[in-house]
Amino acid sequence: MEEILEIEALKQLKYKYFRCLDSKLWDELGEVLTDDATAAYDSGKYSYDGKPAILEFLSGSLGDREVISMHMGHHPEITLTGADTAEGVWYFEDYVIFTKADLRLRGAGFYRDRYRKVDGRWKIEHTGYARTYEEMQTADSGAKWSLTHYGDHLDSD
Amino acid sequence: MEEILEIEALKQLKYKYFRCLDSKLWDELGEVLTDDATAAYDSGKYSYDGKPAILEFLSGSLGDREVISMHMGHHPEITLTGADTAEGVWYFEDYVIFTKADLRLRGAGFYRDRYRKVDGRWKIEHTGYARTYEEMQTADSGAKWSLTHYGDHLDSD
Amino acid sequence: MEEILEIEALKQLKYKYFRCLDSKLWDELGEVLTDDATAAYDSGKYSYDGKPAILEFLSGSLGDREVISMHMGHHPEITLTGADTAEGVWYFEDYVIFTKADLRLRGAGFYRDRYRKVDGRWKIEHTGYARTYEEMQTADSGAKWSLTHYGDHLDSD
Repeated sequence: MEEILEIEALKQLKYKYFRCLDSKLWDELGEVLTDDATAAYDSGKYSYDGKPAILEFLSGSLGDREVISMHMGHHPEITLTGADTAEGVWYFEDYVIFTKADLRLRGAGFYRDRYRKVDGRWKIEHTGYARTYEEMQTADSGAKWSLTHYGDHLDSD
Repeated sequence: MEEILEIEALKQLKYKYFRCLDSKLWDELGEVLTDDATAAYDSGKYSYDGKPAILEFLSGSLGDREVISMHMGHHPEITLTGADTAEGVWYFEDYVIFTKADLRLRGAGFYRDRYRKVDGRWKIEHTGYARTYEEMQTADSGAKWSLTHYGDHLDSD
Repeated sequence: MEEILEIEALKQLKYKYFRCLDSKLWDELGEVLTDDATAAYDSGKYSYDGKPAILEFLSGSLGDREVISMHMGHHPEITLTGADTAEGVWYFEDYVIFTKADLRLRGAGFYRDRYRKVDGRWKIEHTGYARTYEEMQTADSGAKWSLTHYGDHLDSD
């Protein structure tokens, strides 16, 4: 029965990750990652080893205040795999506005994470996602959105 | 106190349904339905009786790889109605791109499901939704979206 | 271990709030608020004191059937602060269509709520949000969306 408390704690961990990401709270975001965390964003296109490298990538991509980002994590399918380890599949949506360039990106995909308890607190040990689709709207494209890629999830499962 | 574990299991059941739906994993999707499951999608406009009929409809509508679908189920209000039965209300959003026709659909609505435990595992016994709105964008409509219907939920509650 | 049941009850409370809001069920929406509830929507731009004032504002803004609204509350970070009190942070998305004016609003932000148990049932004692962004599309703007404000959340945390 302790299991359900662990699952709730893991959900709140992921929610904190996204809240800090979209609020540009990089120090607080660091609290949710293990020191040796790894990331494989966008089917491994953006891969990083260690908390500092992940934070450098995220703050470098989204740190400027002209960038408005929204990342929503839905549909947690969390499994405890040991006393101090867990896995989670999430279905996410994102929407990012680069205000200076009048560029918008939106899309969705599946996260596959691993979690580890460090000193009694859950942290993200590995995070990564494969997109189901991504669309882009540029200043030049008027109001039309172009589809840039999709389908990795159909092969990965 | 077991109740909360059942509710978590029912959430994960629904999340698996949507993940399989949007990943076109029809066999795995079949695992979440009872054999005698019924469906009444879009206020009953698309109604099916039995797991095979439901799977045939879903795979027929969304099975082609040119169709990109995103279905998100939010706001679970789940109630246990017996030792092996439960009900759930969900607020969903969907977005579907028919890439060949350059056609996009988006909308939202409320699911009202019934669940039943079969051999110790929760399954969907009935699923159905009423939309709150739906919008469509076609190749000919440029970037404008047309509202095609809404309002059933205002009467059904 | 009772804690997790309280958290689930608080989630369902908020889901009922949004379901009633978007279904224009004002009496049922009143059930989720304490009599002395306060609201500070949009960084306090729309502030109300007492259940009647909140309901008057919400039904006045969204009560007309020509208005289609969708409010989704995600990422609950709920903390019990006492036997009968709790707090919650939520990440929301909204989308509103004013059909007569052909006007659409969409955006996101963070709710920061307080909850209180009254006669054994959780109610919303205070609710309020700060937006991360808001976009508007008017009949005159064609299919372009204009960004109207954002960034409060970067300072408030």
